[in-house]
Amino acid sequence: MLSAEIIAIGSELLTPGFTDTNSLFLTRQLNEIGIPVVMKSIVGDDEMYLEQAVRGCLDRTPLLITIGGLGPTEDDVTKKVVARVLKRQLVLDDDILATIQKRFKARGAEMPVNNARQALVLTGSDVLENRNGTAPGLWIHSDRNDVVLLPGPPSELEPMFDNTCTPRLQKMTGTAALARRIYRTTGLMESVLDTRIAPIYQKYKNPVTTILAKPGQVDVRLTARGKTNEEAERLVQELGKQIEASLEDYIYATSEQSLEEVVGRQLALKQATISVAESCTGGLLSARLTSIPGSSKYFMSGMVTYSNQSKIELAGIPPLLLDMQGAVSEEVARGLAECVREKVGTTIGVGVTGIAGPDGGTPEKPVGTVHIAVAGPGGTEHRHLMFPGNRDRIRSWTSQAALDLTRRVLMRI
Amino acid sequence: MLSAEIIAIGSELLTPGFTDTNSLFLTRQLNEIGIPVVMKSIVGDDEMYLEQAVRGCLDRTPLLITIGGLGPTEDDVTKKVVARVLKRQLVLDDDILATIQKRFKARGAEMPVNNARQALVLTGSDVLENRNGTAPGLWIHSDRNDVVLLPGPPSELEPMFDNTCTPRLQKMTGTAALARRIYRTTGLMESVLDTRIAPIYQKYKNPVTTILAKPGQVDVRLTARGKTNEEAERLVQELGKQIEASLEDYIYATSEQSLEEVVGRQLALKQATISVAESCTGGLLSARLTSIPGSSKYFMSGMVTYSNQSKIELAGIPPLLLDMQGAVSEEVARGLAECVREKVGTTIGVGVTGIAGPDGGTPEKPVGTVHIAVAGPGGTEHRHLMFPGNRDRIRSWTSQAALDLTRRVLMRI
Repeated sequence: MLSAEIIAIGSELLTPGFTDTNSLFLTRQLNEIGIPVVMKSIVGDDEMYLEQAVRGCLDRTPLLITIGGLGPTEDDVTKKVVARVLKRQLVLDDDILATIQKRFKARGAEMPVNNARQALVLTGSDVLENRNGTAPGLWIHSDRNDVVLLPGPPSELEPMFDNTCTPRLQKMTGTAALARRIYRTTGLMESVLDTRIAPIYQKYKNPVTTILAKPGQVDVRLTARGKTNEEAERLVQELGKQIEASLEDYIYATSEQSLEEVVGRQLALKQATISVAESCTGGLLSARLTSIPGSSKYFMSGMVTYSNQSKIELAGIPPLLLDMQGAVSEEVARGLAECVREKVGTTIGVGVTGIAGPDGGTPEKPVGTVHIAVAGPGGTEHRHLMFPGNRDRIRSWTSQAALDLTRRVLMRI
Repeated sequence: MLSAEIIAIGSELLTPGFTDTNSLFLTRQLNEIGIPVVMKSIVGDDEMYLEQAVRGCLDRTPLLITIGGLGPTEDDVTKKVVARVLKRQLVLDDDILATIQKRFKARGAEMPVNNARQALVLTGSDVLENRNGTAPGLWIHSDRNDVVLLPGPPSELEPMFDNTCTPRLQKMTGTAALARRIYRTTGLMESVLDTRIAPIYQKYKNPVTTILAKPGQVDVRLTARGKTNEEAERLVQELGKQIEASLEDYIYATSEQSLEEVVGRQLALKQATISVAESCTGGLLSARLTSIPGSSKYFMSGMVTYSNQSKIELAGIPPLLLDMQGAVSEEVARGLAECVREKVGTTIGVGVTGIAGPDGGTPEKPVGTVHIAVAGPGGTEHRHLMFPGNRDRIRSWTSQAALDLTRRVLMRI
């Protein structure tokens, strides 16, 4: 059976501040096509350790994936070491060099000489295109092993792996057909969600169910293997239907979409527009909405009404309301949503106010107190929420909850 | 010099949901007493892979720390494998057995038979007391290596390491002292920066120099070792001075601070205030500024002037200017900065406009075209920039460049 080892390369990966996401991404993608990860190693930018790690792996494991060490600097040693172990030469690839030069030219810069290093390839290797950076990946096939060299930045590694490695690995694993489902939810804590659905999915060994929680988001993934596509699809559908019925409208997407993508799609579909007046999220909600390509069609404008003065002057909240209810209140959230909607003239107006901390909490309104309001053609909806955790977490949860309330309001338009 | 490898053992560590904290804890504690971690490996509960990992390590590295695999079940194989590699016997330690029995008795339970496995020790090893669980740790000293076996749960590993390992390791490293520097830069690409400083740092084996690039940020880290603190400090200072002179004001911090922290600190120090009118960054710049605790003291308000209408109505840009110059132009960036500064009444006003893509580019103004302006008491500064990459990258680089221009303007106030 095909099994894989991962070697991550880079001295920064051996510092106390490093958190690994690349190997977790690769593990998930590999597991889904039936390839277990049997060992992971992390080495610095050090030829000796890397060489030992590579040699050890090639003796025992058919597939080796390396991460990083493909940069333009002297201390990027991956290709050199792998070439030595596999007894291959490093040669300059003219096409890659031209592509890198073009990338630099496109932004009006000369290619620094040391970037030419990134155009070196091992003889007999296949080049894996990098659409998001200068370092291409390489795939080297030999009698005993397949060795895949991937760049370190996740924004480069992830699409490269999905586009160039997954199809090839699926062929290598033979007949196995795969069918997947993803249910992306918000509003339920991981443990609450698991209590709901564990009695359902635990009855099945195939599909495999994995649950992955991030702040404000819990994904449920099902992967079924079958001898044919139809068999895999039938298996995943049987379990999927039950999961869907159990999680209801906590599911906001059945694909890898973010909540801002879902809301953006709803807005575009309904030819609706949106504006935002946000306080404690400080621009985060606008930033998430505008992170979506094409959002200029529906996102008109945002106000970061951080000071009380800006709540009055920019959003038009009556000073008396601020005095009487305080800036963090249902009334001010509703006021922000309705004022921004009317002032900008959009279908939807969103208002957010809260206490992100660490300072500013009181016994009645502790840190984590948040008021969210969404104004639409049918009136204004409001949520009063309490979030635990630090400033970052509270801001992130708040923006997630505001997007979710917007989604729910848009569902009814 | 003493250096360490860490091997973490457990099949759950090879799943996509696993996040490592133990090895980061150990790395921090080891680094602080001058012991670098030169390699980390993660293996499942598998004798073959563990044995290969242990053998590989003992050949090249004086100190091996293993994490996990000390539990009472059959698949906890750490002691068995290490005993085999080091050619030692496993013998039952009566004292440990009595301690484990006592722990179970204390909570009114009988010790399960297989927990006796946890009382097995390698001949000639030192027992590391576990005050928070049943599995004691072991320290095995041989001619060439020191091997330390620690339990997996952080609540057991961390106090055990601090209480029993740190003092012993400090004795072993003797006089070794460490000194560190970090130079955090923005505005230079990694390869350009490296071309500048490689001729300087390559002359030194001590301090060790590492370079780490994130979008819009490149860190240079120096770590010097010496027999005394003074010696280490002298070594790091000698190289540090040259790096500083070479990178000049591209260095924005000499600690782990983010650019928004640095700008926030400047604003607080100078009792200055700031407001933002941003288009292509869509709220990201405001979100970064307000991510800092206490930012409500200096951040007054932000405008996300996404539509042309909002540039006119919210920020007060003359319609004629938009018509003549286009929304993405030096004049509009300056206008946004100056209008928001005046309208909100802050010391600093920042204006950002650009084309984040993927659509909206033209031959004269391609995707990635960005205009940034910062208005202050001494006038308005402007930058015209071209960024490569996708929407996310362009937005992230743009917010970084806007913060950097703000920092440079604040330096002169």
